[in-house]
Order: sequence, then structure tokens, then C-alpha cells
Amino acid sequence: MGSRTGVNYTIIRRVCIIDLAGNGRTFAAKYKKITMTNLVLDKELPAVSKLSTVEKSSGKGDTMKALVYHGAGRKSWEQTAKPVLQEPTDAVVRILKTTICGTDLHIIKGDLPEVKDGRILGHEGVGIVEETGSAVSNFKKGDHVIISCVTSCGKCEFCKKGMYSHCEKGGWILGYMINGTQAEYVRIPYADNSLYAIPAGSDEEALVMLSDILPTGFECGVLNGQVKPGDTIAIVGAGPVGMAALLTSQFYTPAEIIVIDQDNNRLKVAKTFGATHIINSAEENAVEKIMGLTGGRGVDTAIEAVGVAATFELCEAIIGAGGHIANIGVHGKPVTLHLETLWSRNISITTRLVDTVTTPMLFKTVQSKKIEPKKLITHRFKLDQMIEAYDTFEHAAKEKALKVILEN
Amino acid sequence: MGSRTGVNYTIIRRVCIIDLAGNGRTFAAKYKKITMTNLVLDKELPAVSKLSTVEKSSGKGDTMKALVYHGAGRKSWEQTAKPVLQEPTDAVVRILKTTICGTDLHIIKGDLPEVKDGRILGHEGVGIVEETGSAVSNFKKGDHVIISCVTSCGKCEFCKKGMYSHCEKGGWILGYMINGTQAEYVRIPYADNSLYAIPAGSDEEALVMLSDILPTGFECGVLNGQVKPGDTIAIVGAGPVGMAALLTSQFYTPAEIIVIDQDNNRLKVAKTFGATHIINSAEENAVEKIMGLTGGRGVDTAIEAVGVAATFELCEAIIGAGGHIANIGVHGKPVTLHLETLWSRNISITTRLVDTVTTPMLFKTVQSKKIEPKKLITHRFKLDQMIEAYDTFEHAAKEKALKVILEN
Repeated sequence: MGSRTGVNYTIIRRVCIIDLAGNGRTFAAKYKKITMTNLVLDKELPAVSKLSTVEKSSGKGDTMKALVYHGAGRKSWEQTAKPVLQEPTDAVVRILKTTICGTDLHIIKGDLPEVKDGRILGHEGVGIVEETGSAVSNFKKGDHVIISCVTSCGKCEFCKKGMYSHCEKGGWILGYMINGTQAEYVRIPYADNSLYAIPAGSDEEALVMLSDILPTGFECGVLNGQVKPGDTIAIVGAGPVGMAALLTSQFYTPAEIIVIDQDNNRLKVAKTFGATHIINSAEENAVEKIMGLTGGRGVDTAIEAVGVAATFELCEAIIGAGGHIANIGVHGKPVTLHLETLWSRNISITTRLVDTVTTPMLFKTVQSKKIEPKKLITHRFKLDQMIEAYDTFEHAAKEKALKVILEN
Repeated sequence: MGSRTGVNYTIIRRVCIIDLAGNGRTFAAKYKKITMTNLVLDKELPAVSKLSTVEKSSGKGDTMKALVYHGAGRKSWEQTAKPVLQEPTDAVVRILKTTICGTDLHIIKGDLPEVKDGRILGHEGVGIVEETGSAVSNFKKGDHVIISCVTSCGKCEFCKKGMYSHCEKGGWILGYMINGTQAEYVRIPYADNSLYAIPAGSDEEALVMLSDILPTGFECGVLNGQVKPGDTIAIVGAGPVGMAALLTSQFYTPAEIIVIDQDNNRLKVAKTFGATHIINSAEENAVEKIMGLTGGRGVDTAIEAVGVAATFELCEAIIGAGGHIANIGVHGKPVTLHLETLWSRNISITTRLVDTVTTPMLFKTVQSKKIEPKKLITHRFKLDQMIEAYDTFEHAAKEKALKVILEN
């Protein structure tokens, strides 16, 4: 989920653990193995986490290759310690396929300073269970699994109500607060709740899209946007997550799907994915065009899949009375909410950090080929071509890249 | 729904007809009897209507007394033409009881320049049907009725889906685009859908609260805020509409109801109406207090019943993960939406112009004394004491006024 805001509309990664108490110390006190170094309060950091854990290694000298972050602007594909079980609820998974997300680019750029030097990046992938802790009962060595970008303990108040994103001990931590999936092996906490079984014979490449972008586009965009049959919907941003919203919105048979971006290649792809109308907002007035398309009424649902003020405010301008603005984008700055016109429009605005509660349901739609997320994969590399893959993904517009797959 | 923002938190009236097409001319063209004089586009007017109709009189010289607006700063209780039927769907109603709303004060102040000199104000009241058009079948002469602040044709796309507020021929027009209820008689368009029958023996004074403030507090605040048993909710603004939200929120048995205002008298009243905690935000830090009360988690629902940026942003600051901000306030200016923190909080923000779809349901709760909206009435006048009543309502804090009742 590239992060190029401005020229191209591309979703910025949106998994993140937040400080439920609004008080880093309170949260940290509840959470064992947290260093206080990077703890900051909500107000100090733009939508990023405030805790960090210490990783253990076997001490036996077992090593593996991984993409390691070494502070702003520095990453390397290097030999590092192979992860080991730390808790009875852990599993260690051998990575089969992984991918790169726009958030990884943000971390490398230094936008998320709470990420420590030495952190292995990545929060998406499929793999084979290598080892399980004594409390893990859903999985055993040799099982093929989807790794969810969101870690869920399954026991806290938020997990019990299906808000795994706000899990008191999990949420987005992979490749952020703990080591991630751009490696030969990864440790997955709360494996029973954070992994999903893959039946033999599945197309595992397609299933990498279930780690994050499909549930993100679906839960934050389509479900929150309350897409219904016959609706006219707009998707602002045709990056991977916008495309995931485009694919999954069609479960609900909207009449018209208008996709807005500033990259003609992505718009062309969106058309082949089911967009009924495409608008290059760099070349034409998107508001006027959409108002023209909707007889002046505006759209029923506007899905924001970019994460900048201009695109959110575009959603405000095109939303029809009774409509729903579903925000997917990660925002680093406030936006202007035009309540002076919207107060009377009977609209909803929703935000959401993906909960991945729909992963099992989305899995069925992929297996039954109701959607084909494999279409989002534009480039393939071997795992040890990680740096080359990053280079391609960093130049997504030039390379016409959506998702890149790295295979072990 | 007083409009004093700043010192006291008091809801500004929030019924309003909007330009569905975002284009006054388009709308006007659909709407017979509209003068184009005051037509302006959404962007030019802060949440107010853009059409105006010409009223007819019998020509027989029948007159009545009414509160007439004569341009900014000028109103009078004067002799004027008695309304007559203009369409087969009209009824003429003799007013028994009416009231004054904060929006009426706004109109008189000149804040709604589209209101024409000569307009009779008022959009709330109960009365007796005096005469019905040939197409009216639900009511007959002599029936006692509640007059809804929102006029609904019952036939357009919005009415068919229960969004009467956006009725293509109605919405809020009473005392705004057509003559209103602060008079001895009023013409009610689409009477079958815009009036509600009152059974004999009802307490009609209490039922005046069903014209507007009860459905407004309930629909825009409680329903949109998804109040549930056990929830902790905050109501920001203890004016009449905030109080209506306070009363009706208790249908759903929240565990805690925190009411925030800057008027100690209103807070004291809120306590007697069911608030479990009251906060004077002029005297203490409301955010800190609420975070303390909720263990740092924030509230499940925050109901904004004021209509200024500071109170909306207070709601943003106190909303818990997974919570709902339900806006009731009429906003004249944009607000800052802190998406840099809220994007990941799984929240909803809703806006709504009251649809009055819950009027029949609320009627049952009043009749069965599940709520007693009569408690909102602080002052009573005879209809011809209209100017005195306005004077009291204009000085609501000093007079300790919530709703004033005028009786014919």
C-alpha cells in the first residue's frame, strides 16, 4: 500500500496499534516485555504505536536472512537470528511468500521513529508452521497458514467484541513492534487467533492478499461504507487497498463504481477490475464529474483510500444525503470537516483499523473465485531479491506496480 | 433550542431543507410556487434553505394574530391574513399551543437572510384541524394534532426511505419558507404525513415537545449514537435538545450519562433528568475529567448538542475506540477533524437533520409516561404574550428557561 500522496493516490498502510488508554504508561504497564524508550502519547505521534518489545533468539546461533531496518533511510537483507518460541501461545512460521506494504516504505523513510534499529519489517505473508508453543492447539508443525497483519489475543474485551485491531496485547505489532514477515522465519504471538489455516491445493500467492489488503479494503471501506445493491459508490485512490475495496465492493452489487486516481495506468486497471467510471482528478474536476454522473445528488458511499486532506475533502464534497464516507487512509494531519454543510445531510463518517474479522469469510470468496485478488500482483521476486523488490515497489508508478510477491 | 454558543452550550435549531441537487435552480425548477429571489447555493449559505413560497390568503379579509418577521432585528405580534387551503393535500390548523426555538432567534437576528419579510415564524405546536383539502384522509375538522417540524410529502424517494428531512417538496419549511405556527392558524402542507393524531385526554402541553426537540434529540443523538445498555455516554450541551437526548437515551439503559455544559443551572436540571455525572467545562477540564471517569478509555457515545467547533472537538477528544460521535448541533463553520488520531480508532461520526420518523414511537413513550418531556417546560404564556415569551427565551440563562409554552 504505497504511500505516494500528491501525485498518485495510493493507500498508506493502515495497521497500527494504538494506546487504548490514551496513556502510554498505563498501557505499557499492562504489557510485559515493553521498553519504555519509545513510549509517547497519542498527541505526540500521528497515528502510530507507542510500545516496543524485545525479541529473543535461541542463543544456539541459528540464523536466517531477513530485511532489517537500521534507522531512517537504512535497510539491509542480512543474516540475523532465527526467531524462537517465547510464550506458550507462540508459533514460529517458515515464510513461503511475503510482500511489501507502503507502511514499510514509511518506516524506512523514518516516518515511524518508534520503530527500532534492528527491526525485521513486514506484516503480510503465508508460510508453514515450523514449531508451536504448548498452548497452541489450532495449528501443528507442517500446517500451511495465512499470517494476519493483526495479532489478536482472543481474550481481551476488544477481541471479545471482534475489534482485534485494538487487542490489548496485539493489534498491529508485526514488522513494527516485533519482528515481521520479510524473513525466512517469523514468530507469531497468539498463533491460534492470528493465523488462518490454508487447505492443501490452494493458490497461496493469492492468499497473501488476505493478510491485510483484502480485509482492509473490505472492512474499512466496503462494510463501513454500507455498500448496497444499486448504490453508486466512489473509491478515491486506486492503490492496492483501493483496488481491494473495488473488488470486494462487488459482493454487494453496487450499480456504479466510480474510481478516482491521478495515475492513468491504475485507472485503466481499475476499469478491468469492475470500475464503471474512472476519473483522473489531475486532469478533470472530480466533483463536477461525479455530480454530473449522479444527477447532482452525490454518491451513496465514498471510500477514502489515500490518507490526505484533499482526498478526504473530495469525499465530503461528493457524498449524497444519507450517504457514507468510509475512511481507509492513514492520515498524518487533521482535515477540515465541513459540518457547515454536512450537519444536515444525514451522513456517516467512519474510521477503522482493520480488525481482520472477515478473513475467514474473504478466504471463502477467494477459494470459490468470487474474487481474484491475484490480479493485484504485478511483480514477482525470490525472497533473496528483497532489495530489488523494494526498489520496484518504491517506484510503483514508473514500474506499474501494485503488489509485489516474494517467494522463499 | 437556544443558540447562545460560547457561554452556555445550547442547541441551535436544526431543522432545515437543503438543496438536494446542490443546485438551487434545479431544485427550484421542480418546486412550484418558488420565488427565485433567495435562491443561493449550498456553499453560499451555512446549512439553510434556498427556496421560498408565496402564501395565499382567502381574500375575504379573514385575519388572525401572528408573530411576523420583518427583516433582521424586527418582529411583531400583529394582525395578518388567516391562511387558507392552497392544495388538496393541505390542512388548516388552529393553534392550541406553540413554543419558540433557538432558530427563531437566529432568524430574527438576521442569520438566515433567505427568510422573507412578512414570514410568520414557528415550526412546533399542537392544534385542532380547522379545514382539510379534498385529498386529506387521515384527519378531519376537529381532530387534535401534533404539528411536525418536518413536512413530508410521503411520495418522493427520500420520504419512501424514511428520510423525511430531505423530502423533495418538504423538509423544514414551516416558519421558514412558508408561514409557521406562532399564530392563531397555520396551513400544513401534506397534512396526512405531516400531522400526528392526538387522542382525547392527552396532555397536549407535553406533546408540543414531539414537534421537534424529542425526535431531534432521539434520532440525531441517541439513535445515530447507537446508545446501548451498559454504555458510558456523554452529552455535550444541556439545552432543550441536549436534554431531549438525555431523556430519550435512557430508553436504552446506558450505565453512565455524563452531561457537559457551562451553565450550572442547566447542569443541576440535567442531574434531576438522569445525568449520572455533570461537568461544567468552564470550571474544569472536561477531557481530563471524562478520561478519569472512564479509566482513560473515553466514552462509547458522544452526543454533540451545541453546534460550535469547540464542542465538536471535545467529542473527538473523549470518544473511545469503537465509539460513536452523534452530531445534533447546527454548525455554521467547518471544524477540525483529527483524523491523525481518529483514523485508527474505529469510530463513527454521524450527522442528521431530524426526520421525525420516530414521532409515533416517541408519542407512545410520552403517553405511557416512560419519559416526561413536560419537565422541559419552564415558562408558560398566553399566545398574545408572544413578545414577552420571546423576551424570556432570549434571556434563557438569566431566566433559567428551557422551553416556553404559548397557549391560545
